[in-house]
Amino acid sequence: MELEVLCRNAKAAKYELNRLSTEKKNEALKKAAEYIKAAASDIIEANKKDLINADEKGMSPALKDRLKLDDKRIDGICEGLMQVADLNDPVGEVLEKFERPNGLKLEKVRVPLGVIGIIYESRPNVTADAFALTFKAGNVVILKGGSDAINSNKAITDVIRRALKDCGINEDAVSLIESTDRETTKAFMQMKEYVDVLIPRGSAGLIRSVVENSKIPVIETGAGNCHIFIDETADADMATEIIINAKTQRLGVCNTCESLVVHEKAMDRVMKKVAAALKEKNVDIRADEEARLSLDCNAATEEDFGTEYLDLIISVKTVKNIDEAIAHINKYSTHHSEAIITEDKANAEKFLKEVDSACVYVNASTRFTDGFEFGFGAEIGISTQMLHARGPMGLRELTSYKYRIQGNGQVRK
Amino acid sequence: MELEVLCRNAKAAKYELNRLSTEKKNEALKKAAEYIKAAASDIIEANKKDLINADEKGMSPALKDRLKLDDKRIDGICEGLMQVADLNDPVGEVLEKFERPNGLKLEKVRVPLGVIGIIYESRPNVTADAFALTFKAGNVVILKGGSDAINSNKAITDVIRRALKDCGINEDAVSLIESTDRETTKAFMQMKEYVDVLIPRGSAGLIRSVVENSKIPVIETGAGNCHIFIDETADADMATEIIINAKTQRLGVCNTCESLVVHEKAMDRVMKKVAAALKEKNVDIRADEEARLSLDCNAATEEDFGTEYLDLIISVKTVKNIDEAIAHINKYSTHHSEAIITEDKANAEKFLKEVDSACVYVNASTRFTDGFEFGFGAEIGISTQMLHARGPMGLRELTSYKYRIQGNGQVRK
Repeated sequence: MELEVLCRNAKAAKYELNRLSTEKKNEALKKAAEYIKAAASDIIEANKKDLINADEKGMSPALKDRLKLDDKRIDGICEGLMQVADLNDPVGEVLEKFERPNGLKLEKVRVPLGVIGIIYESRPNVTADAFALTFKAGNVVILKGGSDAINSNKAITDVIRRALKDCGINEDAVSLIESTDRETTKAFMQMKEYVDVLIPRGSAGLIRSVVENSKIPVIETGAGNCHIFIDETADADMATEIIINAKTQRLGVCNTCESLVVHEKAMDRVMKKVAAALKEKNVDIRADEEARLSLDCNAATEEDFGTEYLDLIISVKTVKNIDEAIAHINKYSTHHSEAIITEDKANAEKFLKEVDSACVYVNASTRFTDGFEFGFGAEIGISTQMLHARGPMGLRELTSYKYRIQGNGQVRK
Repeated sequence: MELEVLCRNAKAAKYELNRLSTEKKNEALKKAAEYIKAAASDIIEANKKDLINADEKGMSPALKDRLKLDDKRIDGICEGLMQVADLNDPVGEVLEKFERPNGLKLEKVRVPLGVIGIIYESRPNVTADAFALTFKAGNVVILKGGSDAINSNKAITDVIRRALKDCGINEDAVSLIESTDRETTKAFMQMKEYVDVLIPRGSAGLIRSVVENSKIPVIETGAGNCHIFIDETADADMATEIIINAKTQRLGVCNTCESLVVHEKAMDRVMKKVAAALKEKNVDIRADEEARLSLDCNAATEEDFGTEYLDLIISVKTVKNIDEAIAHINKYSTHHSEAIITEDKANAEKFLKEVDSACVYVNASTRFTDGFEFGFGAEIGISTQMLHARGPMGLRELTSYKYRIQGNGQVRK
């Protein structure tokens, strides 16, 4: 279908979605799960086409694994839909209620954002996931997935649209842009007349391209060059445990620690122990000159400090005090998640206050920056911008608000 | 000064501003008021240069009046600064506080947005006003005023910078881009590395240009094609009073009513009376064919329904029922402010729920959409977009938030 027609149809469904009751939305989410489960073999068949194409392109085994769907993963997708049905509906929540001296009664209430565009890369489970979250928050969603997963995405979207239709809901509540070339993506980013918000999910390159080219307001998600600062008073065992977790528990995700900032007086007592544990996990440590006097490791270049490795590599920067640490972090971080390991309460407070990141931790792993870990029950991404939402975005972050004002004839003096 | 240097200096002041105490900020606001009062004659002298240039350009008397500063207006500017000093500081406010089963303690707290760019047109009082609001919320501001007011803006900014310096605050907390050509404005909108948010204030053309050209996230403010729906059960006297207020109390502002939507059964009983009152105020009524069977007025074209007149003109559209009214409004409105006049509670609720605008009124004038009227004590503009803030934006809307997370060694399983 022509892109503009698809976007216009999505906008036409907006106000119908806006009015759907929580019960109706949950019914549709459960039916979508049921239909996907029933269509598992068709979806896996479609996914096989994507895997064959992947082989032809010589895709790496790791990426192929992300792309692959099997019965277990289909079950996971269905469970995800059921879980979203169980979450509280944010739409209609009264955020504030107040009365003015002239008798006007004001209520600030949550409303859907409208039409949300999601631009994402290879994993096909995002298709169902992004639909579930945006739909539960009363939004219409237009999906623009990567070419690698196009057959899988199409199969999943078709099933969801069928489920919506059978619930008596406008199936344009979800649509997939089937053409996957760059020109279509660029044209999609100009559809300001129809699309209210764009959320890119994927690599730093994808996100940068959307931010630079979109005329539609964007929620920037993703890139995490996360730091952990080992303060003078850090407990060596705690520092080791937290850093091993933050660096090695999962490599390719945005809340993984990529850089250590070390108080010079903690270098021998704490960092040596941390370094030994990192080496046991095969982490390549790249440190500045001063740290290399104590540590047996590679040298860091300026570029290292600004790099989100997503790999078994970590950079180390030595500082004289907490002020230097904070300045270094605010300079190089992507404002995602940073932590301090310290026993000093004043320094903990200073770090929490002055580090300019969405999530700032004292004595805990940066890996907790996640909608599920925060108890939101869902996550569409981690915002690294200042506007609208910051940090993990759940259902509430997929809403806006309006003011409802009730009067009895008031006019302005 | 070179634009990029100015932006870099602004960013360099960001974290210092972030840390300023409420007391220090209030001290600076009061000193700025004091200094502006003391420098009144210099500022008025600078303003005279702008007025001479305006004469040379043949500026209209109305625009010249907006540009002009005198002792009374300078007093107004100073009072504005003092009032902002009296407002609560939003920075540090704890929005939420919760604990996770693993013992992590989370707090969601308000923080400044960072560096805010304000692009505005002629009125020089915006210079002090925009500084006061952004500064009180802990932000650095870069001002890009219009060429018409450049001498006035420069004089006011210089005085404020002196006041900041004398308070021991980095004077780059406020800076003015002195070059006023379009190329500079375009270049400013690319300064994503330094500027966190852009807020355009002014004409629809200015705002559209910023939205289309900016790589920096924008808060879209302004345009208001506001509707009032006269429902079947509307009280004729109330409708007349509200519509006269909403259309004629002030013409050139965004919350002024530009279009009436009239239930066919209210045409003779209510609209005739409203039309007579509008004519007394010399309002040009432009109505659809059906309304013209009852009203003696001009014919509306399709274009009229989409026009924000900001003038003594109003369009009239006849509808058969509330659903048609809501559909018409959602199609043509700029999602700013809309009102229903009705005695029917179910229709009032339907209108509040289904009209997709920042502020939706029952039996009150749209002119109340204003930060002061809402009790925010300030206003930087009215947001007409869905992201971040919607409707009147006060100090709170000039902030973002961060999560502060305290642990005692937690790692992710």
